[in-house]
Amino acid sequence: MSTEQRHLLVIGIGAGDPDHLTLGAVRAIRRADVFFLIGKGPEKSSLTDFRRGVIDAHADGPYRIVETQDPPRDREAAGRGAYTAAVHDWRTRRADACEQLIREELAPGQAGAFLVWGDPALYDGTLSMLEEIAARGTVGFDVEVVPGISSVSALAARHRIGLNQVGRPVHVTPARRLAEFFPGDGDGDGDDGNGAAGDGDVVVMLDAHESFAGIGGGDDVWIYWGAYIGTPDEILVSGRLSEVADRIRQVRAEARARHGWIMDTYLLRRTGDA
Amino acid sequence: MSTEQRHLLVIGIGAGDPDHLTLGAVRAIRRADVFFLIGKGPEKSSLTDFRRGVIDAHADGPYRIVETQDPPRDREAAGRGAYTAAVHDWRTRRADACEQLIREELAPGQAGAFLVWGDPALYDGTLSMLEEIAARGTVGFDVEVVPGISSVSALAARHRIGLNQVGRPVHVTPARRLAEFFPGDGDGDGDDGNGAAGDGDVVVMLDAHESFAGIGGGDDVWIYWGAYIGTPDEILVSGRLSEVADRIRQVRAEARARHGWIMDTYLLRRTGDA
Repeated sequence: MSTEQRHLLVIGIGAGDPDHLTLGAVRAIRRADVFFLIGKGPEKSSLTDFRRGVIDAHADGPYRIVETQDPPRDREAAGRGAYTAAVHDWRTRRADACEQLIREELAPGQAGAFLVWGDPALYDGTLSMLEEIAARGTVGFDVEVVPGISSVSALAARHRIGLNQVGRPVHVTPARRLAEFFPGDGDGDGDDGNGAAGDGDVVVMLDAHESFAGIGGGDDVWIYWGAYIGTPDEILVSGRLSEVADRIRQVRAEARARHGWIMDTYLLRRTGDA
Repeated sequence: MSTEQRHLLVIGIGAGDPDHLTLGAVRAIRRADVFFLIGKGPEKSSLTDFRRGVIDAHADGPYRIVETQDPPRDREAAGRGAYTAAVHDWRTRRADACEQLIREELAPGQAGAFLVWGDPALYDGTLSMLEEIAARGTVGFDVEVVPGISSVSALAARHRIGLNQVGRPVHVTPARRLAEFFPGDGDGDGDDGNGAAGDGDVVVMLDAHESFAGIGGGDDVWIYWGAYIGTPDEILVSGRLSEVADRIRQVRAEARARHGWIMDTYLLRRTGDA
């Protein structure tokens, strides 16, 4: 019976500003019987508190909150293959934990919600995790996705810019793939790419190592950088990359030390031919 | 005096579902004294009606709606240079019309709103138009951007997929640049690209010519296609490109004939190495 199916809501809650929440997200939160909160180490207090605040503000009782900890992840895995393997291993352990929660904490016919930072479609593992759990066949459920404001959209809005130039593409990439998009800095250290960005803009997510500092073409590249976007701690810096890179590194290091974690995003735009 | 400044709100209203509106968009709509609606030929009735519906549902009186028609645009310009020139020319005429509206219809100290389909950051001309008007120095204003759910996010949510695979980039491109991202179909007609997509996903916007049908590697490429996403007319098709391309063309032609216009988006994913 379809009424006996478990229903999972994967709800994008935006990138840090409570006003990013959509009317659809609010409606979905009101339909949830159980909220699954997954803590993430050092970011835990801020990000989990934010989710609890969203639930407090919008949920209709009765509801339950079930909290679990993300399994530890090897973030030092080097090279693309090792990185992908480390992520897959971490995701399998995460799926194990969530499978158990869905089976034990959500009754058939109930709706469980995952509140996803940003947009569930962009560099978030919840959907592929649920696909992996579904493929195991050990617990049945259907999935509904509520799109959210990504940190990419929020970054562009705060800088009042578009992500693309007229008629051109925009590339969104994890930081460890950034070097491929630019010709490289020519220092021969092996990180020089093939300039795959062409005349398009490049948006970088998940940059733990300030990769912007290593790319070539600095005089023709503008950077629009932001951290903690949409929150009271928001920091924005923009300018010619060669002129502001050091300032961003400094601001970033100070903010990271102060908060214990940082969530930043940036757009790189070639202006030479603009 | 800052209170004498005109204030312009550029508000993303999402991709067709009234529930895409964010709480921030609702708040911004309530602050607006004047709404600028720009009609767009055949899509006019549906899209302008949708904007009027959003205003009716959320605005706090008193407010005014000022409607204007988009200047005609040469959509047949061939080649990248001609295309860019045609867009720039159209944008200049559009900026002329909007400059006049801001000067004549918005008093200093008032807030005027542009309701932008999707996200103002993605393939929308409102922000660059306002930048062009500001550069003329003929009327002073400040600009605030409210990010919105893009058709790209909405597409992914409806298909319940991510836009990227683990650790890989995603490229968003106008349809006329699509061929560059794939190796081409090898038919020697000159549209073969260099495979710049690599192992990344490719999202295509603004495809008037069913460009997906011309790319190579069809057996290894999956397509996730959607039209009128988030509306009661929504159509979704997904599958191996070589198997569903004809069906999408047929569905697309029928829908376009029925509605008089079509707004569709799709994601192309290489599965060979996934």
